[in-house]
Amino acid sequence: MKYLLSLIIVVLCASAASADTLRTKVVEYSDQGAVMAGYLAYDSAFKGPRPGVLVAHEWWGLNDYIRSRADQLARLGYVAFAADIYGKGNRAKTPAEAAALAGRFVNDRPLVRSRIKAALAVLKNEKLTAGQPIAAIGYCFGGMTVLELARSGADIAGVVSFHGTLDTPNVADAKNIRAKVLVLQGADDPYVPAAKRITFEDEMRMGGVDWQMNVYGNTVHSFTNPASGDDPTKGVAYNQESARRSWEAMQAFFKEIFAKPGK
Amino acid sequence: MKYLLSLIIVVLCASAASADTLRTKVVEYSDQGAVMAGYLAYDSAFKGPRPGVLVAHEWWGLNDYIRSRADQLARLGYVAFAADIYGKGNRAKTPAEAAALAGRFVNDRPLVRSRIKAALAVLKNEKLTAGQPIAAIGYCFGGMTVLELARSGADIAGVVSFHGTLDTPNVADAKNIRAKVLVLQGADDPYVPAAKRITFEDEMRMGGVDWQMNVYGNTVHSFTNPASGDDPTKGVAYNQESARRSWEAMQAFFKEIFAKPGK
Repeated sequence: MKYLLSLIIVVLCASAASADTLRTKVVEYSDQGAVMAGYLAYDSAFKGPRPGVLVAHEWWGLNDYIRSRADQLARLGYVAFAADIYGKGNRAKTPAEAAALAGRFVNDRPLVRSRIKAALAVLKNEKLTAGQPIAAIGYCFGGMTVLELARSGADIAGVVSFHGTLDTPNVADAKNIRAKVLVLQGADDPYVPAAKRITFEDEMRMGGVDWQMNVYGNTVHSFTNPASGDDPTKGVAYNQESARRSWEAMQAFFKEIFAKPGK
Repeated sequence: MKYLLSLIIVVLCASAASADTLRTKVVEYSDQGAVMAGYLAYDSAFKGPRPGVLVAHEWWGLNDYIRSRADQLARLGYVAFAADIYGKGNRAKTPAEAAALAGRFVNDRPLVRSRIKAALAVLKNEKLTAGQPIAAIGYCFGGMTVLELARSGADIAGVVSFHGTLDTPNVADAKNIRAKVLVLQGADDPYVPAAKRITFEDEMRMGGVDWQMNVYGNTVHSFTNPASGDDPTKGVAYNQESARRSWEAMQAFFKEIFAKPGK
């Protein structure tokens, strides 16, 4: 009984300690005079410098979902920095607001690149990522964002796009890509139908990129986000299996492009 | 010094023991009066029943490459059985011989199904797979073979096709598929161009199958086989990176469809 009690106390302390080691903070930075409010997360249970992962948000802007992904990455042993592409306070509450915010950037790729590069600079300047490789992941609008970052020739080890927008007006820029590219796509995504996937393949091929694409059956747009609902006929829905499979594919990819973080 | 010597002896013994625990044998079985000679492999370092993995060969027939894959699967803790689709002694030495052997089966899918089902029965009857799930993997011609096995409605947990032939005259049979399906394809495979991948997606979609496809950039046909050479302009070439990535994708898939084998 005494042993059992001790065991329970040890288990409780261990889980409390684990919860306590997540460190997060809002980091303000600027790009071309605009103020951004990003979100940094790391786990103090891991010691010393570690790879950094930049996280680019969906068309909603930097919200709870994106912060939760940054927290998950921190718990995997990375320094995660959720970029703020829209600027401090610019968050959409309705699809109409999201479309307006995203539209401005979708149609101005140089601005997208400038904003994500400003966030990359913040992450690279963190003491904990000193001398360590950096990856960038993005969801939906953020998938487009990290692919544009790669097309800009940024010095990053890899990019992962989850149900991202694949087309670009800058097709020839694929030749600048130094990062390895992993694209994770729903087979039934109405916003990225098969024809757009094929166009993307051609872009990567012409650019001589190290790229891979995983296509998930029975899966529509925004499949990684539980807030996407459960009705695939709407073209947007959460798919738990594909969310898990794609997250694991990302981890396998990180294992390839990063040294394994120590604890 | 004494300590170092002991250590060296321990290491040597451990590696010798490890090599010794691989058990392999040729298993003869029959299908419609024809005699087959399959290849069974397991590792005696693993104890008790474990999942089985059927392995279907390339157009060359059951050769050293396929045996090496069976050995690798055994070392992962599975019972591997390399099926003999062509029949005992029928092995191709030249591409012309391979094309003749494969052609007969490509054009007779009921025969393919009968042959692979006979092999599945052997694996299911092994004492070591008792009550355990079974998967089937195949390379090239063997990819087609395991997909036909799935289309036949066979009771298997999953199939993995490596650079396999995806088209079938039996498109409507996808509705019979009970296995989860993972297809691993070279983006530049001249035998399975993008249009054939899209046709396959449509087949899986219509059949309501749980399916995934990983597409590897800079990768042509037969990319997993070191004997495929190193000249992608020939349309057939080994790609070490894609071979590794696809093997890891298979292992992640097995982790999903099997209980983790114990040691």
